[in-house]
Order: sequence, then structure tokens, then C-alpha cells
Amino acid sequence: MTQHPDAVLAPSVAPNHHEPASRLALHRVLIDTYHENVAYLHRDCAVYRAEGFKALSKVEIRVNGRSILASLNVVDDETIVACGQLGLSKAAFVQLGAKEQQTATVSQAEPPESIGALHRKLGGERLALDDFRAIVNDVTEHHYSKIELTAFVVATNRDELDREEVYFLTQAMIEAGRKLDWHEHPVVDKHCIGGIPGNRTSMLIVPIVAAHGMLCPKTSSRAITSPAGTADTMEVLASVELPFRQLQEIVHTHRGCLAWGGTANLSPADDVLISVERPLSLDSPGQMVASILSKKIAAGSTHLVLDIPIGPSAKVRSMPEAQRLRRLFEYVAKRLDLSLDVVITDGRQPIGFGIGPNLEARDVMRVLENDPRAPMDLRQKALRLAGRLIESSPDVRGGDGFAIARDILDSGRALTRMNAIIQAQGSHHFDHNQPQLGTLTFEVRAESDGVVTGIDNMVIARLARLAGAPKVHGAGVDLLRKLGDPVAAGDVLYRVHAEFQTDLGFAQQLSSKASGYTIGVVADLPHVFVEF
Amino acid sequence: MTQHPDAVLAPSVAPNHHEPASRLALHRVLIDTYHENVAYLHRDCAVYRAEGFKALSKVEIRVNGRSILASLNVVDDETIVACGQLGLSKAAFVQLGAKEQQTATVSQAEPPESIGALHRKLGGERLALDDFRAIVNDVTEHHYSKIELTAFVVATNRDELDREEVYFLTQAMIEAGRKLDWHEHPVVDKHCIGGIPGNRTSMLIVPIVAAHGMLCPKTSSRAITSPAGTADTMEVLASVELPFRQLQEIVHTHRGCLAWGGTANLSPADDVLISVERPLSLDSPGQMVASILSKKIAAGSTHLVLDIPIGPSAKVRSMPEAQRLRRLFEYVAKRLDLSLDVVITDGRQPIGFGIGPNLEARDVMRVLENDPRAPMDLRQKALRLAGRLIESSPDVRGGDGFAIARDILDSGRALTRMNAIIQAQGSHHFDHNQPQLGTLTFEVRAESDGVVTGIDNMVIARLARLAGAPKVHGAGVDLLRKLGDPVAAGDVLYRVHAEFQTDLGFAQQLSSKASGYTIGVVADLPHVFVEF
Repeated sequence: MTQHPDAVLAPSVAPNHHEPASRLALHRVLIDTYHENVAYLHRDCAVYRAEGFKALSKVEIRVNGRSILASLNVVDDETIVACGQLGLSKAAFVQLGAKEQQTATVSQAEPPESIGALHRKLGGERLALDDFRAIVNDVTEHHYSKIELTAFVVATNRDELDREEVYFLTQAMIEAGRKLDWHEHPVVDKHCIGGIPGNRTSMLIVPIVAAHGMLCPKTSSRAITSPAGTADTMEVLASVELPFRQLQEIVHTHRGCLAWGGTANLSPADDVLISVERPLSLDSPGQMVASILSKKIAAGSTHLVLDIPIGPSAKVRSMPEAQRLRRLFEYVAKRLDLSLDVVITDGRQPIGFGIGPNLEARDVMRVLENDPRAPMDLRQKALRLAGRLIESSPDVRGGDGFAIARDILDSGRALTRMNAIIQAQGSHHFDHNQPQLGTLTFEVRAESDGVVTGIDNMVIARLARLAGAPKVHGAGVDLLRKLGDPVAAGDVLYRVHAEFQTDLGFAQQLSSKASGYTIGVVADLPHVFVEF
Repeated sequence: MTQHPDAVLAPSVAPNHHEPASRLALHRVLIDTYHENVAYLHRDCAVYRAEGFKALSKVEIRVNGRSILASLNVVDDETIVACGQLGLSKAAFVQLGAKEQQTATVSQAEPPESIGALHRKLGGERLALDDFRAIVNDVTEHHYSKIELTAFVVATNRDELDREEVYFLTQAMIEAGRKLDWHEHPVVDKHCIGGIPGNRTSMLIVPIVAAHGMLCPKTSSRAITSPAGTADTMEVLASVELPFRQLQEIVHTHRGCLAWGGTANLSPADDVLISVERPLSLDSPGQMVASILSKKIAAGSTHLVLDIPIGPSAKVRSMPEAQRLRRLFEYVAKRLDLSLDVVITDGRQPIGFGIGPNLEARDVMRVLENDPRAPMDLRQKALRLAGRLIESSPDVRGGDGFAIARDILDSGRALTRMNAIIQAQGSHHFDHNQPQLGTLTFEVRAESDGVVTGIDNMVIARLARLAGAPKVHGAGVDLLRKLGDPVAAGDVLYRVHAEFQTDLGFAQQLSSKASGYTIGVVADLPHVFVEF
């Protein structure tokens, strides 16, 4: 089937190439339309009638040389917007940097320049680098409607992008934002593809490799669908929203940081795409690779260790799938001159004991303090990954990294470095020996004797979120038993902490339906054969 | 990759299973948000703060046992909506059938029930009939957001649906709306997949087959991206928006009608899906088959002649593509017990001379009156298709249909029947011998001597739309030369009619860039080998 004539020909005959745009006085309408720009015009306004706008048309508004796109709402109430005025929602006002009563021009918005490329992708064609550049620019500039954004992410879902197209997309996403320059080489980083609750290895790896002298300026995200991101857990201990200047100073002094990457404008298209991927639960290999690598390269990393956990309730569930994903990451990284070390890890269960910001911060600090109550799996995993990063130093022999990392941790040098970073970023009050946890709790107990043969990452994550994490720092799940642990009927498997009764109720409802735990015999334990 | 836990588990733990919804007084906010329901809550409203709504959250509003979903806008201006009030946009007020100051309850909307099926389709899985039923119900009830609607149409684009899934989708679309019953058998109908301007054969076929005594209650659509739909052109001659009762009477008396199908609630999901397919120019075989067949079967048709035009600028450009589409239509029609006769026709150029409502109505009436100025191609095509429908009568021998149709047309019986139908539907004033055409005109002339070897359907359609069709009845394009006609340099190829200077300017701009005509030698004429 071919495209509609409107789609093919519209861009060349868009009205506002010829028509003088119409001038109106700006008026701030105190309606919060979230990320969506909305313009309000009175139905009797001469401009509305002359231009043939329709409700929800996309219009372009210009003032002081700046322009934004907005959806049009038509109003029949002069107290909201009068004739001769152009009402704008709060977000639109801010984006435009405008003042009340300033004169603005309004015209029919042209279709985004890249719409032809989008249509070709929808038709199953392969796109070139310049096509991806055009699309990513329009995405970044908020020129795409929700319909167009969704069409793009669905049309590039699953295996719709070949590996070179994934590279093109990644490259375009890097170019569309800021690129940090640390004026040093190498700049090391570590990332996990996600899906494993409690997996806070970054907060151990950064102080370890920084103490080894490597530059590790880690910028992380907040939780999107998980109970805590690294930025959420780090925020329990220190400020994470820092201006780039301050970040540079900290990194210069301490060789590392643990900051939130949200303000740095790194791969900004990623955040826009995620806004439609998330409600659709889309997380295809191509989109994952482009999202992760564009953020890392924009953040200035030259060496990256990437953690791909596999397990029955992880994002990746089989070794062949993990290997395919690894090869895609490696191909794109190579095209982008990023030195990449992919490590496929055990993702059969959550890492550590605590799930939720305060609980996770407790576990991390216990590992750093060599506390006997520290979760061994978190310690071991962090040491292995830190070891791999350390081995990217030219003066370290292959296989020696783990021992070096262990020495740094056991000697207390990692703890010292972490405390220095915390102080530098701005310490928050947190006593990890008596972490403040939600006072409303319930416990889930084993229904029979046996061995823990399964812990569902997705159920545990969901429980912690329902209990209030990450917004409520003290909320979450504390796991008292892990895979392979023997249990007797009635033993506590985990404890849920919440601060609000409603949250506790939601979590209770889910856990009574699906506890997330399976009790069986040792032979039922799922195996994964990974490097460690 | 696997789904996010939120997506998997959310429906079972949605808040409003437990929480009492909050009560507020309805207030009509005079903002026209087009087809989108918007609810307005003041930021200081206790309900807003207690429920943890976010701007643009989907909320469910109930009053008098009816409920609608709406997007939430948060307001900081008491003159728009006060604390304790729930503001609703005009469309939402109408949908809810509510009165000012009535008490309504508002709660967080649950995710649509079919969201799991949508996620499986996004993951590339095959869906069952019940999955399509659930999705189509949610689409029809406006439970899907724009993101979800778009995801569905893109995930079922191209070859993503196998033929049985296309049947499932079609069946689900039929079930979701009304089904007309004419209490008679057979009920014949004719449809074209579109893309050929001026192709108004229905307005000739209906009076011919009705005059032959067959029941042909034709419901058509208005133009979506074309310069005129059958309903638009018929509206030049008569009213087309008729209550079903009146339609039944007309059909009972005259054996046929030519009405707009928009009010009858036939396959209502189709209209919702089209609202996102259209801006994306999506028109895949599966979606086309489900859209057309669901509308026809819902309209009560038992026998359908389907016109698939092929040509270099038609929707279908090659015979293999046409045959694939034919087989898909036939498979689904068979599963639905619809007797289907697919005719692959010559789609190399527009049909008739006039493009646009008044110009097309002129051509149709000239054919009915056996006027020598009538376009022969429109006459011939209508007779052939009418003949095929007539042959579905058990008493007509194969091959005799064309001659029967021609006798009915040549004898004036088709004209008489058409006039009766026009009178019954409510005649509009239209003098087809002096049709009212847009007074602003320009002509496009041949730049060289030769033969017309190409007329681009898409360019001609676009020109007619830019000139104002179908909204401006007298606007459009009048073709003075057709394929194969010899021309001398300077001869007029076509004339564009508009009523407004701006429209004329847009059309002029396009025609100077792309006239739509190719002049060459006879050997360059594209060939199509079709049944007629």
C-alpha cells in the first residue's frame, strides 16, 4: 500500500510558508498540562476564524525569536482567554520564556521535517544516518506528537532495526545533546541493563576504582519502573543534583562521583522516547542499546563494563538471548569507539537484602564497612565488576583486577573514598546502622519446609514500589532468605516496610496473590552458567 | 526482552478496587478539546492532593451510572475551576450526559483490560479472537490513550497480522457496534478500496441495481484524505444524514439509498482507529480488509462487489500485490459468510472528468441522462460493476449482467430511480447542466506536443483538496484531457476551481511544482491488464 497524498505532499505546501502569521497578546492560563504545550484561543477570535485552525491542531507560536509548538484548545469563555489574546499553559509559557501581554505570532505548524523518514520506517524500510538525525532532532525539539513518537518506537521495536541502524540511532541521539569532556583518558563507567532489584553495585564500584586512581564520573538515572535507581539510593546519603561545574571539581579531586544525570542534557531524545516506551513496556534490544550507549558516550565515558543479568525473571532469560544482546552492544560500541566489556551475570534473584532506597543504602554501607551483616552477593558482584574495570588499566594484568578491588575494599580505602565523595556532593543525614524504615510492616512466611528455589525479581520489585519506594525512602522489601537457603514452615521470608496504610494495603494484596518466593527441593534450583 | 513488572501486574492491584472514589460538583469548562476528554481540578482541591493524581493522569468520572475516562489538567485559577468542583471539557460533559452542579465521583482510571493482549502483540505474538474482542471493545469505549491506539495500529501494520487474525479483528469490529437488518436476502453492496479521484460509480450502480429490483442500501463515508467521498458528492444532490427509520422506509419503497453511514454506529472502532492511522498514512492490507468488511457486514450486506484499482499512482501498484490483497479479502469474507466478488480495475488515472463534489455530481448526472458530454470511463466502469452485482441474482446468467445494466441505464430507468431516491432523501438544489463551480480558476496547459501518458492520482487529489474540496462543494479539478489523448503545446490539460484566493494560491503552488500530467509518446502509456 502507498502513502496518502496528504502525507507525501503536505510538507511542500504548508500554509505558513506564505501566510503572514497572526499577532496576539500572550496570556498565561493557569492550567498545568504537564509536559504538553496547550494554546487557548477564543472561538470568536478573528485569527482563529481566518486561519482555519481546528481544535487540537498543532500551532507554532513565536515570540522574541523563540518558537514552540502547542496543541490548540478553543475556548468559549472570555474569563479564560479573550478575543485578541493567545492563552498558553504554564509549561508553554516557561518554554517560551515569555511575559504576560507580550505580542506573539501564531500559525499552523508545519509537519516535522523527518516525517517522510518516519513513514518509510513504518513501511519497513531501512533508514540512513541522516534519517535518524532528522528524526532524533524532531524528537528532541518536541516536534513529534504522541502519535508520531509512539509510531517511531513501535516501528523500531523488536528486530525492526538492523545493527547498523542501531548504531545510526545511537549516534544521532548522542549528537542531539551535550557531550561531557573530562579532559582525561580513560574515563571508566559501569552500567547494568536493569531488571534486578537491589543491584546497587555502582555505589561500590565507583569508590573502589576511584581509589585505584581511575576516573569514574558516574551519572545515573532515577527509577523509572524499578523500586530505586542508583540516583535514588545515593540521594539517601548525599545530594545528587549538582551543577556540572561542581561535578567537575568533585571528580577532579576524588576521581569519582555518583550524580543524577538528568540535568546534564545528555542524549535528551532518550527521555522523550522513554515517555512513550514506558507506558507500553517496550524495551527492545535496539532501543536498549541506543539508550544506554548514547547516555554513556554523551557522559564522556571511554571504557564501559556492562552488566547483563540472566535468570527466569530477569529482562534476559536465556544465554542465547544474552549473547545476541552482547553482540549488538559490542557492534555499536565498536562503531562509536567505546571500549566495552560485557559481563553476563547471575540474575536469578535480587542482589543484596534490601530493596528500596534506605534499605539499599544500608546494604551498600555495610559492604563498604566490611560489616559481617553485609550481603555477600552484592560484595562479590561489585568486586568482580570493579576488577574488570581495573583491568582496563594498561598496567594491570588480566585476572588481577578482582584481587586489587578486594584489597581496596578490605583495607577500608573504598569506604574512605565513598565518604569523601559523599562529603563533596553534600552529605545527607543517614545512619546506616539504624536506617529509618517505614514503620508499617508485614512479614511473609514460608508455607512449608524446604529450600528457596525461586525469588521473582518482578514481583519483589513491584511489592517494593507498591509499598512506596522510591518516593518514600524508608519503604521497600527486606529479604531475609535468598536462593538455596533452607527454610522451615513459618520462617520469615521477607519483611515489607511502608509509611502509609494505603501503600501497605496494596503491597499486602499483591503478596497474598503472589509472594514472589518458591519453596522446593535443592534439585529444583534454577542453574545459570555465567562467568561468576 | 520481557515486560516491565508494572505492566504485568498493574491491572490486578489498581487502586480504585479498594479506595472509595471522591465526590465533587461538576462544572462545565468552556474549552473545546475536540475528541479528547479533559477533567480540570484545582491544585488545592483535597481530592487532588489525597489521590496522588498527576497532571495528565487518566481519571474515571462517574455520574448517574455512566462513566467516562478523561485526562487530568491541574488548575491554579479559581475562575476556571474552584476547590470542590470537577471541571469537564465540553465534549466530556456531553459524553457523560451530565448537568452543571451534579455530583460526580472521580478516581484513578484502571489500565484497559486488554492491555496485556496489546503487549503480547507488541512482542510479536499471535492473538486469539477473544484478545481482539477485548482490544476492540476498549478502543470503541475510548479506553485507549493515543499512545495505546497508535501502538495497536503500528503493531498490526504491514504483515503483522496473519489472515486469521485479520478475520478475528474484523469479527470483533463488527460485534462492537450495531448491525443493520434489512429483513431480506440478498442485500447487495459495492465498495472501492479508494485512491482514485472521481471514482463515483456507487451513485450509478445503486440506481441501476435498485431498478433491477435488488436491495442496495448503500451507506458511504465522507472523504478522509480524498477530495470527495460518495457521501460528500451525494450531498450535493440530496440529504445524506438520515435517521435509520427513514432510511428503512426509503429502501423499502425504492430498493436503494445513498446515505452517510457515520451516524449508524457501524463498526465504531474503525473511526477511532482511523483517527491515528490517518496522520501516520497507515493503510496496510489487514487494516484495510478489517475496516471495509466490518463496515459492510455491519451495514447488513450479504453480497459485495469490491473494486481494487491498480496503477502507478493507485494504492495498489502491481498485479501480484492486487492478487494478494484479493485473497485476503476473500479469505476473511468467506469466514464471515459474505459473498464477495473482487474486481481488479484500471487505476492508472482518475475516473470521469470532475474531481470535487459539484464536478463529480455533474458527471454522474450526465451519465444517468445519457448526455453525450458524460465521461465514458465512468459509465463503462459503473455498468461493469453493476453487471457483476446483477449476476449475483440466481435468475441471471453469467455474462448477462452488463447488458442488463446497460439497458436499465440507456432506457432512463436508472435516472428515474435516482431521482426518486433523491426526492425521498430530501432533494437539494443542484443544476447539473450549470453546476455552481468556484469562480476563481486557473488552467494548466501542455508544455509540449504529444500524448497524455500519465495522470497522477495523488497529485490530482491533492490539488482538488488544496482548492477547497470537499468542504467547498464547487471547488476541485476539471480534467479536460485523459490518458492517451493527443495534445498540442498550450492545450488546456485541466482547470482548477476554488472559491477562496488562499486555496487557489496553494493549488497553484503545487501545480507549478507537479502538474500531475506527463506528456510523451503512445509507446510510453502504462499498461494494465485487468478484466475490463
